[in-house]
Amino acid sequence: MMNYRSLFLISAALLTGNLCPAQDIGPASVEDFRPSTLNQPGKQYPQVNSEGRVRASIPAPQALKVQLDIGGVKYDLQKDDQGVWTGDSNPQDEGFHYYQLVIDGAQVPDPGSMYFYGASRWGSGIEIPAKDQEFYALKRVPHGQVRENLYFSEITQSWRRCFVYTPPDYEKNTSARYPVLYLQHGMGEDETGWSVQGRANLILDNLIAEKKAVPMIIVMDRGYASRADRSSTPNPGRPQGGPGGISAFEEVLIKEIIPMIDATYRTLSDRSHRAMAGLSMGANQTIQITMNNLNLFSYIGGFSGTSNYPSSAEIDPVTFMNGKFSDGKALNEKINLFWLGLGTKEPDPFPGSVGAFRNMLEKTGVKYVYYESPGTAHEWLTWRRSLYRFAPLLFKK
Amino acid sequence: MMNYRSLFLISAALLTGNLCPAQDIGPASVEDFRPSTLNQPGKQYPQVNSEGRVRASIPAPQALKVQLDIGGVKYDLQKDDQGVWTGDSNPQDEGFHYYQLVIDGAQVPDPGSMYFYGASRWGSGIEIPAKDQEFYALKRVPHGQVRENLYFSEITQSWRRCFVYTPPDYEKNTSARYPVLYLQHGMGEDETGWSVQGRANLILDNLIAEKKAVPMIIVMDRGYASRADRSSTPNPGRPQGGPGGISAFEEVLIKEIIPMIDATYRTLSDRSHRAMAGLSMGANQTIQITMNNLNLFSYIGGFSGTSNYPSSAEIDPVTFMNGKFSDGKALNEKINLFWLGLGTKEPDPFPGSVGAFRNMLEKTGVKYVYYESPGTAHEWLTWRRSLYRFAPLLFKK
Repeated sequence: MMNYRSLFLISAALLTGNLCPAQDIGPASVEDFRPSTLNQPGKQYPQVNSEGRVRASIPAPQALKVQLDIGGVKYDLQKDDQGVWTGDSNPQDEGFHYYQLVIDGAQVPDPGSMYFYGASRWGSGIEIPAKDQEFYALKRVPHGQVRENLYFSEITQSWRRCFVYTPPDYEKNTSARYPVLYLQHGMGEDETGWSVQGRANLILDNLIAEKKAVPMIIVMDRGYASRADRSSTPNPGRPQGGPGGISAFEEVLIKEIIPMIDATYRTLSDRSHRAMAGLSMGANQTIQITMNNLNLFSYIGGFSGTSNYPSSAEIDPVTFMNGKFSDGKALNEKINLFWLGLGTKEPDPFPGSVGAFRNMLEKTGVKYVYYESPGTAHEWLTWRRSLYRFAPLLFKK
Repeated sequence: MMNYRSLFLISAALLTGNLCPAQDIGPASVEDFRPSTLNQPGKQYPQVNSEGRVRASIPAPQALKVQLDIGGVKYDLQKDDQGVWTGDSNPQDEGFHYYQLVIDGAQVPDPGSMYFYGASRWGSGIEIPAKDQEFYALKRVPHGQVRENLYFSEITQSWRRCFVYTPPDYEKNTSARYPVLYLQHGMGEDETGWSVQGRANLILDNLIAEKKAVPMIIVMDRGYASRADRSSTPNPGRPQGGPGGISAFEEVLIKEIIPMIDATYRTLSDRSHRAMAGLSMGANQTIQITMNNLNLFSYIGGFSGTSNYPSSAEIDPVTFMNGKFSDGKALNEKINLFWLGLGTKEPDPFPGSVGAFRNMLEKTGVKYVYYESPGTAHEWLTWRRSLYRFAPLLFKK
């Protein structure tokens, strides 16, 4: 599980057809670069052009070599007579990408960008405008809130944090109760991912304004948890424990998070009003946890991941997950929605692994919805699009 | 107003008695360094020792020169045979400090730290443990929530964001109404400052748990605002407009923010239940705005700043702010609390400026509370301590 991200980076390099450690800029870029929408206030670089190229620029007068490192490929920047290094990447896929600069061998965030937690670090991010960006844009519609909740886990003996989206009318209809979607990030990401990179709150604000989705609460927790007796890193201060084991996450979610959410928020707490979805590692966790606890969940979403990861081998439903998928008819009566999504440019092992899982569902007759995000890899635009298509199907049975 | 931060940096260098551009490490450090509590998950550097020295370390095999830049002083790091550069700062004051690394002339965030908005940029921060750190520690007490609110300002024609702290019992006592403190950041900081660097939520959680402060809502908004017709930078996407003018902030606060908060939250909306406080630029704004709107506010807090900034000249109460402070007796009947705070190590012009303001208050007989934070400069520990002492005096008349 720990190698989702490194696998992706290697595969991304393969997909771009470039195995060289440093990359020529190639044909001249179209000169319509504009500052990235994710830049720090007032910062002019990095920039993005209409081809999806990224132009990085940084003053480093005494440096010998400066590179832009994005999508597993490094691009050499060129120094001008003011000591400013500038250079362009090849065209990137639409959507959000993590990147960094390399200055004489030092891997550092770009001081021009804002910072995001992914690839197991806080670092730079850039947004290549997507043709369908309207669905996650900040619009003049009623907006919900994103709330930081701190809580102490007895199971892990540590402070944890979750972010909770409440829909726009939550503070107005003060007696209304709402269904809940538990929405999980991927390996190397954390509880900030879905509201920051994923824009889950804006996607739901827009869907609710258009009456395409019912108002719901979304809980975005931290997908890592280890029992205290197995953990060597207590965290007495802020809840900043690093990405670590996931062995106790199911127990923490079922025994601590769900009861806390149901006690704190005005939830509808029966299984017909509780969904879980996640991306990559979070998809794997979602399928494991919901299938182990069908008394608690009736809507299931797996974005770019399934519980047979990383295997692409044919699945025997009799033995897989102790036969939990073997009786399709019974599952179809119990599960309101089983939803899977994948980007068309995802690297191995995702297409094969998700494909094998789908074959298994078809073999046993489990009904499911499948979506492919065109032109996106194992990245946030795939998952924004997945949420945008998954959320309207929730809580309508 | 724009030079708060640069003034501070220059003065800090003077205070440490060092005018050289690069600093010898001096006497050997005590070897009890531990990772900073503000490090990224799993990162071993930067570290802090019992003397308050900061040890930075970064691999940069091809670099010619690497420096740690903290408190306006640069410290040369030394390279080992693995290409890793390491070095220590002089002892730093207790509390939170912004810093950066300089790699062959490139000013970049430290990839080991988490990032904070201050000094007009997202960059590295480090925490020197304070002897009194218990009051802002994350403890096993009931915790409130910090909520992100997005709203469109008609005055500025832009999206804005505020963070709102709701006290621990807000979701339980669903018919209770609460007093409100509007709490402002300083120049070069933003609406994230008070809950992240300032730990306002934890300070209030602890005070409320000990029954030292009454449960209250805290609104932490963005202290910058310019009327749309004067602004050249509309922000169609995320509310990421840079620090800019402050000319319209009073109008935005009075006409848009307060009505929005009173419409969204269960507030007590009369002047006896509304306070405003701020730090540095936010203190200046607080005094201006509350004195212009005493029909709306009855509690006033100025942390490390007053409305005569940057002047240290004697104030004539007849002419200063159109004579608003000239009738001390009338003000004492109207204002429930006028509170001022300052760190004992603050650089010019703060001691002189705040001192001249205090002299003016004493001349006209305006009652006020004054607090000095021992051993701290124009930094967050001064402001955490100020909030810790200010909040218990609120809403008790």
